[in-house]
Order: sequence, then C-alpha cells, then structure tokens
Amino acid sequence: MSEENIPYEQTELYKIRHTAAHVLAEAVLVHYPDAKLGFGPPVEDGFYYDFDLGQEENGKAVAFTPEKLAEIEKTMKKLLKKNAPLQNRTMGIAEAKELFADQPFKQYQIDSLAEGKLDEDGNTTQEAASEVSIYQHREFADLCRGPHVPFTKKVRHNAVKLLRSGGAYWLGNENNQQLQRIYGTAFENKEELAEFLRLLEEAKMRDHRKLGRELELFHISQLVGSGLILWLPKGATLRDILERFMRDAQIKSGYLPVITPNIGNLELYKTSGHYPYYKDSQFPPIEVDDELYMLKPMNCPHHCEVYKSKARSYRDLPLRLAEFGTVYRYEKSGELNGLTRVRGFTQDDAHLFTTPDQLEQEFIGVMELIQHVFTTMGMTDVRARLGTHELDNDKYIGDPAIWEKGIDAIKGACDRVGLPYTVEAGEAAFYGPKLDFIVRDVLKREWQLGTIQVDFNLPERFDLEYVGEDGEKHRPVMIHRAPFGSMERFTGILIEHFNGAFPLWLSPVQMVVIPIADRHVAYGQKVADELREAGFRVELDAGSERMNKKIRNAQLQKTPYMLVIGDSEQEAGAVAVRTRNNENRGAMSVADFKAHAQAMVDSFAQEL
Amino acid sequence: MSEENIPYEQTELYKIRHTAAHVLAEAVLVHYPDAKLGFGPPVEDGFYYDFDLGQEENGKAVAFTPEKLAEIEKTMKKLLKKNAPLQNRTMGIAEAKELFADQPFKQYQIDSLAEGKLDEDGNTTQEAASEVSIYQHREFADLCRGPHVPFTKKVRHNAVKLLRSGGAYWLGNENNQQLQRIYGTAFENKEELAEFLRLLEEAKMRDHRKLGRELELFHISQLVGSGLILWLPKGATLRDILERFMRDAQIKSGYLPVITPNIGNLELYKTSGHYPYYKDSQFPPIEVDDELYMLKPMNCPHHCEVYKSKARSYRDLPLRLAEFGTVYRYEKSGELNGLTRVRGFTQDDAHLFTTPDQLEQEFIGVMELIQHVFTTMGMTDVRARLGTHELDNDKYIGDPAIWEKGIDAIKGACDRVGLPYTVEAGEAAFYGPKLDFIVRDVLKREWQLGTIQVDFNLPERFDLEYVGEDGEKHRPVMIHRAPFGSMERFTGILIEHFNGAFPLWLSPVQMVVIPIADRHVAYGQKVADELREAGFRVELDAGSERMNKKIRNAQLQKTPYMLVIGDSEQEAGAVAVRTRNNENRGAMSVADFKAHAQAMVDSFAQEL
Repeated sequence: MSEENIPYEQTELYKIRHTAAHVLAEAVLVHYPDAKLGFGPPVEDGFYYDFDLGQEENGKAVAFTPEKLAEIEKTMKKLLKKNAPLQNRTMGIAEAKELFADQPFKQYQIDSLAEGKLDEDGNTTQEAASEVSIYQHREFADLCRGPHVPFTKKVRHNAVKLLRSGGAYWLGNENNQQLQRIYGTAFENKEELAEFLRLLEEAKMRDHRKLGRELELFHISQLVGSGLILWLPKGATLRDILERFMRDAQIKSGYLPVITPNIGNLELYKTSGHYPYYKDSQFPPIEVDDELYMLKPMNCPHHCEVYKSKARSYRDLPLRLAEFGTVYRYEKSGELNGLTRVRGFTQDDAHLFTTPDQLEQEFIGVMELIQHVFTTMGMTDVRARLGTHELDNDKYIGDPAIWEKGIDAIKGACDRVGLPYTVEAGEAAFYGPKLDFIVRDVLKREWQLGTIQVDFNLPERFDLEYVGEDGEKHRPVMIHRAPFGSMERFTGILIEHFNGAFPLWLSPVQMVVIPIADRHVAYGQKVADELREAGFRVELDAGSERMNKKIRNAQLQKTPYMLVIGDSEQEAGAVAVRTRNNENRGAMSVADFKAHAQAMVDSFAQEL
Repeated sequence: MSEENIPYEQTELYKIRHTAAHVLAEAVLVHYPDAKLGFGPPVEDGFYYDFDLGQEENGKAVAFTPEKLAEIEKTMKKLLKKNAPLQNRTMGIAEAKELFADQPFKQYQIDSLAEGKLDEDGNTTQEAASEVSIYQHREFADLCRGPHVPFTKKVRHNAVKLLRSGGAYWLGNENNQQLQRIYGTAFENKEELAEFLRLLEEAKMRDHRKLGRELELFHISQLVGSGLILWLPKGATLRDILERFMRDAQIKSGYLPVITPNIGNLELYKTSGHYPYYKDSQFPPIEVDDELYMLKPMNCPHHCEVYKSKARSYRDLPLRLAEFGTVYRYEKSGELNGLTRVRGFTQDDAHLFTTPDQLEQEFIGVMELIQHVFTTMGMTDVRARLGTHELDNDKYIGDPAIWEKGIDAIKGACDRVGLPYTVEAGEAAFYGPKLDFIVRDVLKREWQLGTIQVDFNLPERFDLEYVGEDGEKHRPVMIHRAPFGSMERFTGILIEHFNGAFPLWLSPVQMVVIPIADRHVAYGQKVADELREAGFRVELDAGSERMNKKIRNAQLQKTPYMLVIGDSEQEAGAVAVRTRNNENRGAMSVADFKAHAQAMVDSFAQEL
C-alpha cells in the first residue's frame, strides 16, 4: 500500500469508513425510526456505530438479530448507490440542541462540547466550544469533525460489509447504559474487501486458543484461575525450546543469567516507584510478619538489587543481566484472552547496565539480537517506532543532555543496522526514550514486539554507582529489553503465524514412526529409539489403527514427518517419509533421514 | 560404626551424652549455686542444658561468657574424673516437689507430670503420673527417665567438650522466659571427639552462606525480602546446569514437562485439602475481583488440573508430569538459613499418575533416577527409610488392600535395586506410604534428600479417572517425587559437599585463560573464543596483574583450570595447564586440552 507512511486518519480509506458509518446510521433509522444514536467512528479495520433501540415488553434491551443485520446491510447498499453529497457546516450550541432534539446521547455530547469536556468525535478536550461541526447527507445529520468522502457513492456498495453486532457501554463505562454496536468494514474496492474477509476467516482458523486446544499446547482451568496458563507437555516443550534458543543467543552476546523470586517486599517497589505508581495493574500486597510483599509486576527492581550485591567498577560494565522472569499483573477478567492477554507471564527479560558512552554500542547489540529472533521466526516485515520526549514538557526526568545522547544513540544504532523507523515525539516513557519493533505477520496483522527502553530513572532511585577510570563514582544507564516480550504472548503469536505447523526445530513432536502391522513394531521401536538418541522428539504410533488413519492423526497434530514402516522399509533399514503437507518423499535410509532432519533443525529452516 | 542400625536412644553414645549433661548441670551449680535448672537432653551431635542464672542489676539476664564456659568445662572434667555412680529411683509427687523445692522449672515439670502433660524428659504425654523417676549422682539429682552410664567416669574427661552458649526459651515457646543454654558434646574416646571437631571446623569453612558470598553464587537482599534468594550469574549458571541435567534424565525416563503458574485460586487448595490444612506454613491469600488467590505451596493441585485437561485412558498411563515449579511457604524469619531454609524455592517436582498395577515398576524407575543423581554427585553413602501406616490407626485414608499393595510395591522396588532400607511404622503420611533417601555427605552429615510419596488421596479429591481396558472408569494412583528436593537446598548441600570446588561439568566458570603479558592477549582471546565455541564456560583475564596473582585469583574462585599463555605456548598453539589444586600439568595443545576437558564433562568426572 502506498499510503503506509501517512497517518491512517488522513487516508482515503479512513474517509470511506467514516462515511460508511454515517450511512449505516442512516440505514438503521430506516428500520428503527426511533433509534437513539451514540458514537460511530472509523476504527483500525473498519468502523462501528452504537444505537439504543429501546426495550422489549419484558424490559430487555432490543438487540440486532443476524437477519436484521442482513436487511440493514441491504438498505445501506441501496443508500450508497442512490448517492448524495456530504456537507459540512457549523452551528451554535442552541441550534445544534434543537437539531438533535430527540437524540439524548447527542444532547449529552453537545452539552459536553459546550462545557469543554468532549469534542464532536467523543475525544476528551479542554476547550469549551461555542460552535459545533455537523456533517449531513440527505436527511441524516451527525455531530462530526470529518473528514469524509464528498459523495456517498465514493463508498462502493460492493466493498462494504457488516461484520457483527454486540453490546457496548455508553462512553465505554460499565456503569452506563448498554447500547447495541454494529461493526462493519469498508474498502476501496471489492477485491480488497474479499482479501480482508479471507484473512479474517484464516485468522479464525488460526486462532491460537482453538489451535492451543487442538494441538494440546495449553489449558486454562477455572479452578486454577482466569488468565493463568497451564502449559501442557507439548506447549511446555515448545516454550522450553524457545527459551533455550534465546538463552543460547544471549550467552553468545555476553549476557549473564540471574534468577530472582516472584515476590518482593513492598519497600522494593516503593524504592523503584512501581508502587503506588502502577498500583491498579498489580495484585494487592500480602502481609507477612508485619511486612507487605507483592507478586512482582516487573523484574527490574530485583535486578537493581543484584547490581548492588557488590561494588561495581567500569571494568564490570556493560553488565547484562538476563532472566526468564515470571511476573504477575492484574487485568480485568473481561480483557483476558488466551495466551495474548494473561495475568501471569514470563518475560525474556534483561537489563543492561552501561556507561553513557557504551549506550549506542549496547543498543546495536540488542537490536541485532532482536532482528536475529525475528529473522529466525520468518518475520521479515519489521519496522520500528522511536518514542522521544517533548522538549517543553517537564514530566520527563533526567538531564536533557543525557536524553539527547540517548536518542542519538538509538538513531545511530537504527542507521547502523539499517532498520527503518519513525519518530514519535511525546511517546517516550517519563524515564527515557524507547524503540518499539512492529512486526507484520503472514496475515498482515501488526504486532508490537521487542521493546527496547532506555532508563535514566531506576539507576537514580536505587542509587546505582560504578567507579570510573577516573576513580570517581558515576551513575550507570539502564536498558530494558525483551525480544519475545513474554513467552505466553509470543507463543500465541507464533501459533497463529505458523498456523500451528511449527518449523521442525520448534515442533514439540518432530516425527511419528508408524509401523504398518504388528510385525513392524519392533523395528519401529528401534528406529524411534535411534532418532530419540540423536536428540529428536519422536513418537511411536504402535496402535491398532490402520496406516492411513495414523498418518491422518499425525497430520491433524501438524507433526512434521511421518515415518512409515512396512516390510520393504524393515528389510532395507529404511523409513518411508511423508510430511504433514501430505508430500510423499519415498523410502530413505534412517541415516539419510537423520542427516536431512538435523540439517533442517540446525538451519532453523521453515521448510521440511 | 557398628551401632548404625540401633536407634540412637539405645546406644552407649546416647548414655554418655546424657550423663555428660547431668555432670554439666552439676558443674554449673558449683559456679552458680543459685542457678535454676531447665531441661538437659542428649541431642543429635551432643547434649545441652538450660539454666536461669538470675538477673544483673540492670535487669538483664546473666549469661555465660566464653571464659566462664572454659571454667565450667574444667570443673566438669574434674567431676567426671572423681567418679560417682548414677542411681535411679522413683518417688511420689509430694516427695519430688520437696526434693526440688528451690527449682521452679522442675516444680512446673512435676506438676505437669502429675497432670499428665509432660514426662520426665519433657515429652508430651497423656498419662497422669503418681510417681516420678529420678537419676542422682553425688548431691546432684534430676528428673530423668535415663538411660545413663553406670558411673560418671564412663564419660571420658578428654572426650567431652563444651561448644557454645546462647539463649533458648523455656519449653521452646517465645512467649516464655529466656534461659541460657550450654551446648556440649561427648564421644566414646578422644579420637572420635577430635574427628568431630575437625569436621565441625571443616563445616564452618564450607558453610554455603560463606562460600555463596565468596564465589558470588547467591545474595539475599533485605529490600527484596528474607528467605528470598537472588541467584547471581554464577549461581544461576550452576542451577541451570543442574536443571538441564535433571531435565535430560527425566526426558530419557519418559517424563513430560509442564509449566504452571505460581498462584492458584483458593478453591483449588480447598479441593486438594492443602487449605486450610497447611494454612500456617502458607502465605496468606490475595483478594482479586472478589476471589482469593494463593502463592502455590505445592505443584500437585496444578498437575491434577493438567491431568483433568482431557479424558484419560489406560493407554495414557503412566503419565509422568514434571515441572521445575517455584513454590512459596511461610517460615518464621528466625528459622531461615541461607539456601537450606528459605521462603521461596523451586522443586524438581514430578507427579506420576499410574494404574495400581504399574506402581512397582514406576517406583523402580523413580528410584533408579534418584540413585543416578546421587551417584553422579559422588554421594554414594545412601540408605532409605520406608514410612508405613499403623494398622490400628484410622487417620490413614484409602483402602487397606491398596496400602498393602503400595507398601509391597516399594519393598519390591527397594529389593530389586538393592537399596538398604528400614521400616518405620506410623511414619507414612495420612494419604500414602513414603520412602525417604538419607544421604551422608563427605563431612559424614546426613541429609534427607529425594522423598518418594505414594498418594491415594489427591486422585480421590480431584476425582481423577481413566478408562481401563475393561471400558470402565478407574481411579489412578499418584506418586510425588523430587530427587533434588529443591534447587535451593540441594545447591546449598552441594556447595558444602564439594567445598565450592565443583566438578568440571558443574563449574559455573570452567577455565580462565591467563595471558602473561599484553603481547599474549590476542592469542589468549582466540583460545578463549575457540573454547567458548566448543561449549565451555571460559573467562579471559586480560588484566594488568601479574601471572601469579591471576592464578591465585582463579584458584580462590575454585575455577577448575587456569590456561596460562606465554611466548612458547603462543608459538606452539598450546596452553600451559594448571588446576585449582595447584597441579602443573605443563603445556598441551588446545585441541588436546579440549578433548581432555570434554571427556571429563561427558563422564561427570569428580577429578580434573
């Protein structure tokens, strides 16, 4: 797409979707003339609009049925084809209140505008308005700041689709009235819509929650608790392989492992400032012998204490402390989702303590490590977002000269490794600039993975020091980084990225040995043992089912190789190799197969 | 020792120590005629006696000084040499109260005897006594059930030693008065005493807390919390090697890894019965969204939920679920000790779900694994203790026939692997029989390591089932086992067992490359890189210190090999090999050294 570097809000697609939302509301009013209108903005993949349809006789809110949704979509398409210009005008508060006399949510919105609380799009504002902006086509008018396409016909009727409906609270506040939200999407042409719907269908098939169950990777038990993952044997094996991969890469890059407890005294988090600053996203403290302890929400305070376990000199720096640290954070139960939104997760965390002069070199090292991870996983569509401070904002702590040095170091590092990045002023944390990696997966979905964060704050709060070459005490700088982010979320993304068909090196079970008849079981066992001895993860399917059923079972489990054994293979000391893609590779000596599979593992190959 | 299989209480040594305690009290009364006497029993490595010496003018309790302790020891020796018979008699309550008229703690004890609360030795009892037992020699009489040696001279004056003194609460209750306790020891002869004192001195040198600090293995920060271990890079490396060793051994033995969260809903522990049953040794619950969660004190309830994540058939059994699971248990802060008594620890835990018929075979598998661990660590002095039920006690749950089957399975397994064991009736848990491994380390200290526990209870409480070959539902049996016990405690024991000089395969740093002059650094770097590439853990000491100082530093860190590089080594492509024991192995090609070191690692060799 050519518009990739323009903000979404300025694209043609945004205008199309915005107008589609207005036409949706117009169509709903055809079917429900008394419907009360909420907000209706474009969103990432389409648009929505919220409605109050009144109550049924039993007091229940009237909701959209799938049939009604289909009718509304038909009406929408008709209205789009009929065509009408969209016109923008402003009017005074009183006039607007009269125009929307029978729309209570719009009344609220106009009052909020006048009081300087919300703008026309529902964004919070601080400026009281004396006029409001209206967009109108035909009879339908809406409070709106635009932008829109000039005519409804610019939204192609065959490139619009209503996706689903559901409840949504007015202003997103669960104490408010529940409205009925319709989600839809619109594209520039029907081909793009078709591609979007195909990917949507594909994403459903690849849903890691569905695959996680089918492939027996993980399980969530309500008795254990919401958002707490039980990694089943195959998932735990996958996770262990990922962890080992990262651990090896880190050791090669000069990281040192540490292990710290999952809890810490509340005083530790008061020292770091995590308490009470991030209190709402933490589990409440536990009282032990008149002291308060907390489940750790992050590993950094513990690593600062490791730094302080002895006196440090410039010779010790950079000190790169790495931990697969399991942390706990509170999330509302309604926001939990499979592996990607959980209450307990393990970060592939590390903290680099450096002198200011080492910052750029260390940043490059971290970026290379992260790039290595993405490349190995076949994620090649990667860009970065650099969050910097705003010069006139005093929320940012630390010496401005050090900030400049930090930002220059990051830019220098991006240039050196050739990573494209955009700069977003004001997106830094208060304690230092950061670089986010944005990875696009095979379904073209973007994931934020692998943040690198410079920190001038914690070294200050923990009073970290090192003795420099000059014999004086200096303050180190910290870098936080986690290439996977968390084992849970990254595994969830990998499941969907690979559609559960992991490359050989990552597959929890790499091959199933399938004896055709009972007389082949002993040789099958021998082959399985030999492969296991060579370090492969092998299963033997000695059951009584027929060969084709066994092959099918292994393919459903997305096992890379099926090694079928009949009379001729047994005689020849061979195996007949099939893949999960149902390729028949024919007979191969066990030694040849082993060498082939080992080469695929060693090269982290995506293919089999 | 020939008495190894007799209970300690019946040995000559016990009698000697018991009598030594009486003579200690007699000696204290020589120096402090008004001292009030508490209890004075033999203990594992000696004996103690508690005294109240009254208060100083400022209200502080009078305590023993080291000088006073030396004087008391001298008096004791004199009294032992003087010789006197020990005579036992019984008397009525009233007569006893008169005999001990000026001894308030003895008065309390006599009252407790009469009320049926405590016996003469301070053990709780349920039987009210009408008579009490007294042992007397010379003027000194004590409430006591014996046994004693017949004459004080049987305690050899040159085989007795007072070790230290300190505070101790009356009846061990911290709400009671604090008394002054003297610890001493006694042996059959002076050679045994000398050996004991040598080992005691050695144990002090080997103290894992001291070595843990010197070798930078772990650190405890008060800001993080008491009993919570920060594993420093070298300790974390050691732990990772141990974990990897166990993980590989387990995979070979057909275990499947799982990973479960560190917390669980309180309902989970109510289901398992851990709550409120073990409430006092757990951290208190955390309230989240009107639910209560707990730091997990054990992994078994989580593993039961993994078992229940799908329907199981006999074909799935035995199912061996293994996890390096970090659990948290409350311990009083006064009882915490380095790595061996902590509040958070990681168990090398596993649960085997078996049919009753598989129990013996699985037990054998577990025992072989545990023996493999001990043998690899050079712990060859191993015995076992089988805890069984008591037939007339109804606290034991489960079918008596299954109990018999379980106990027979354990005995059969011990016989099959040739492990000597003693049977201790009544030492089983209420839910099943257990086998404890008792390992004697190089300092002749016994450690309980590697418990195996059969469990008939949790499968019942979690309603675990499998479909048998008969198509009917059956209840599996569970085995709990942890060969290391915990990574923390086992590491603590290993540090002392090896005196910090770990075998090559376990050493966090295996070799230090030492260039003699600056002109050797580049070649030194090349050697270090080559060794690192081969998988060794290598440091390069390129500092400006002199060679001998560098060697000394590496030896203080107990690094197995120092690879010294001067002109001749550089020219020859060699290294001059020294060991931490200061052996000079002379020059060796890098390839030869690599092959030698690899052979030592692969064979888990104790020597270098």
